[in-house]
Amino acid sequence: MKTTSIVKVSKAEKSKLEQIDFDNLVFGKTFTDHMFVCDYKDGKWQTPEILPYQALTIEPSAKVFHYGQAVFEGMKAYKDEAGKVWLFRPEENFQRINKSSKRLNIPEFEEDFFFEGLNELLKLDKDWIRSGQEAGNALYIRPFVIATQPGVMASPATEYKFMIICCPVQAYYTKDVRVKIADYYSRAANGGFGAAKAAGNYAGQFYPTKLVQEEGFDQVIWTDDTSHEYLEEAGTMNIFFRVNDKLITCPTSDRILDGVTRKSVIAMAEKLGIEVEVRKVTVKEIIEAAENGSLKESFGSGTAAVISPIGTIGYKDKTYDLVKPEDCYSAQIKKGILDIQYNAAEDPFGWRYEVK
Amino acid sequence: MKTTSIVKVSKAEKSKLEQIDFDNLVFGKTFTDHMFVCDYKDGKWQTPEILPYQALTIEPSAKVFHYGQAVFEGMKAYKDEAGKVWLFRPEENFQRINKSSKRLNIPEFEEDFFFEGLNELLKLDKDWIRSGQEAGNALYIRPFVIATQPGVMASPATEYKFMIICCPVQAYYTKDVRVKIADYYSRAANGGFGAAKAAGNYAGQFYPTKLVQEEGFDQVIWTDDTSHEYLEEAGTMNIFFRVNDKLITCPTSDRILDGVTRKSVIAMAEKLGIEVEVRKVTVKEIIEAAENGSLKESFGSGTAAVISPIGTIGYKDKTYDLVKPEDCYSAQIKKGILDIQYNAAEDPFGWRYEVK
Repeated sequence: MKTTSIVKVSKAEKSKLEQIDFDNLVFGKTFTDHMFVCDYKDGKWQTPEILPYQALTIEPSAKVFHYGQAVFEGMKAYKDEAGKVWLFRPEENFQRINKSSKRLNIPEFEEDFFFEGLNELLKLDKDWIRSGQEAGNALYIRPFVIATQPGVMASPATEYKFMIICCPVQAYYTKDVRVKIADYYSRAANGGFGAAKAAGNYAGQFYPTKLVQEEGFDQVIWTDDTSHEYLEEAGTMNIFFRVNDKLITCPTSDRILDGVTRKSVIAMAEKLGIEVEVRKVTVKEIIEAAENGSLKESFGSGTAAVISPIGTIGYKDKTYDLVKPEDCYSAQIKKGILDIQYNAAEDPFGWRYEVK
Repeated sequence: MKTTSIVKVSKAEKSKLEQIDFDNLVFGKTFTDHMFVCDYKDGKWQTPEILPYQALTIEPSAKVFHYGQAVFEGMKAYKDEAGKVWLFRPEENFQRINKSSKRLNIPEFEEDFFFEGLNELLKLDKDWIRSGQEAGNALYIRPFVIATQPGVMASPATEYKFMIICCPVQAYYTKDVRVKIADYYSRAANGGFGAAKAAGNYAGQFYPTKLVQEEGFDQVIWTDDTSHEYLEEAGTMNIFFRVNDKLITCPTSDRILDGVTRKSVIAMAEKLGIEVEVRKVTVKEIIEAAENGSLKESFGSGTAAVISPIGTIGYKDKTYDLVKPEDCYSAQIKKGILDIQYNAAEDPFGWRYEVK
């Protein structure tokens, strides 16, 4: 056991690394040798620890199981050709998990615990990251907080666990996605917690998603719950539309996640000289654009896939197929972001953060 | 170890019962000697078991922690003066947990596993139930389902755990509650899962509730998320208003929980000769009724408290205190329901279910 200035470290006796087939990884199924854990009790975050990756012992009445106090983040670490490890805008994830926590009445986490814990964890498990921008090799990082206090009374917990676990991954999506625009089910309420990266925002999407999957789609594009006239986001992605040569996306709100990749896409598009408009987007205008041919592209943005091109949009009984133009924005923007993430290009934005 | 026709039973070596101070129970903190557990894997619910109450071993990537697939029920068992144990409308809870599960894409549970498991569990732990209608002694029963499959990919789990845990309780609320009507935050979306008894519906309420508690209220009365003009429910209760001699409550919807106590209150009120109106209720009419004195009573209904009289309603910057009239509906209805629950009166509705 060693102790950094902040984090107590207990190393795994034996690495599982040799058993891993890096060419056949299923997203989110394989975890590295270590995990970061920090408990909240007696009104404060206790000493953070890095432990061998292991199962948790938790009471059946832990409040996370009953009242859903659980928030998370998704991040990635990338290895460049020289073997250096990089994070992408990690301060955005740190700020957002605290914003999510605040909305769910979970105590905010300590900045130095987060960064030192993450850094130590990635140093210990750095051999789990393969360089390889082309295959999309990276380490997916999942910070999360859960309410561990036992007790079946509906009130905020007084005990929590902040954890970070990591999975080696390849590219997330392999083909263009087929999406259907929601006209009955909804993801989030006005004045709700749709903007929080909260566990409770996901479970409610699975059933409506299953229904559209039965019709041959992959995901739902969510609309506002009042009129279903405004396009908002997909379940795990923010969404963009290219109408003629303009890239359009809706503003964030208390219903819509403030995606780190979303804001990186906007910045990268502008750097590439693409006109970007952030404003409410109606279902009507996008369907009209699809019908008259001015809808040139559409894509989702998110940490796992960076950009997922949308191949087909369904609405009511109709489907609209999109054929990517030669000057495809999504490919240019994705390459621009990946080059920065993998340290294969300059970083005029200051997005990269070296793990060392 | 013994095996009933369905349920495998492993008894606790020693009961904790002697250590319990039944006169000073904190709601939801003390659990009985046993718990019911049934795992879902390989596409079906496996052999249900009753085990000594114990902590769970669960992977940090279990989907419940990340994507919120978790639903629950609240029920109570009552002991009459002769020592017989009774449940109240348990088939309603069974049907509702499956309805909640369906909305969250969780596999529905088996009816015989539920009833036999519950029956065996209550027989084993029946000494934890004290007769005592006056003190509100009862056994609070918490069936719940959580997604246990490991993996940080946002998709429905393929492995779950259905559990039942039990707490001896006294009365839930001791004084009239002070509620504030929501005019910014919301509990549920149109087309969302507000009608499901899902963990994710609770965590989002804690922060807005904390804000009203800082103003001296106990709970929020939620309104529709579009206009905030319609009164819907409190976080853990459905709500009723008595305007002159009429009892009014809003209909259930995809935003509002279909409360078992709510429908029992309606039936009991009608039996008592009280006129009940189920229709949309506006904030405006209730505030006007509070101002002109025609709002005679208001109360919440739920399993934990049966009925919680509301003493004060806050809206914007004003508060309205309610003084219970002599022919108080809430007291009559509560007594009517409790008498049936404790087998102290006839049960014309067929609500009681004997554990034997």
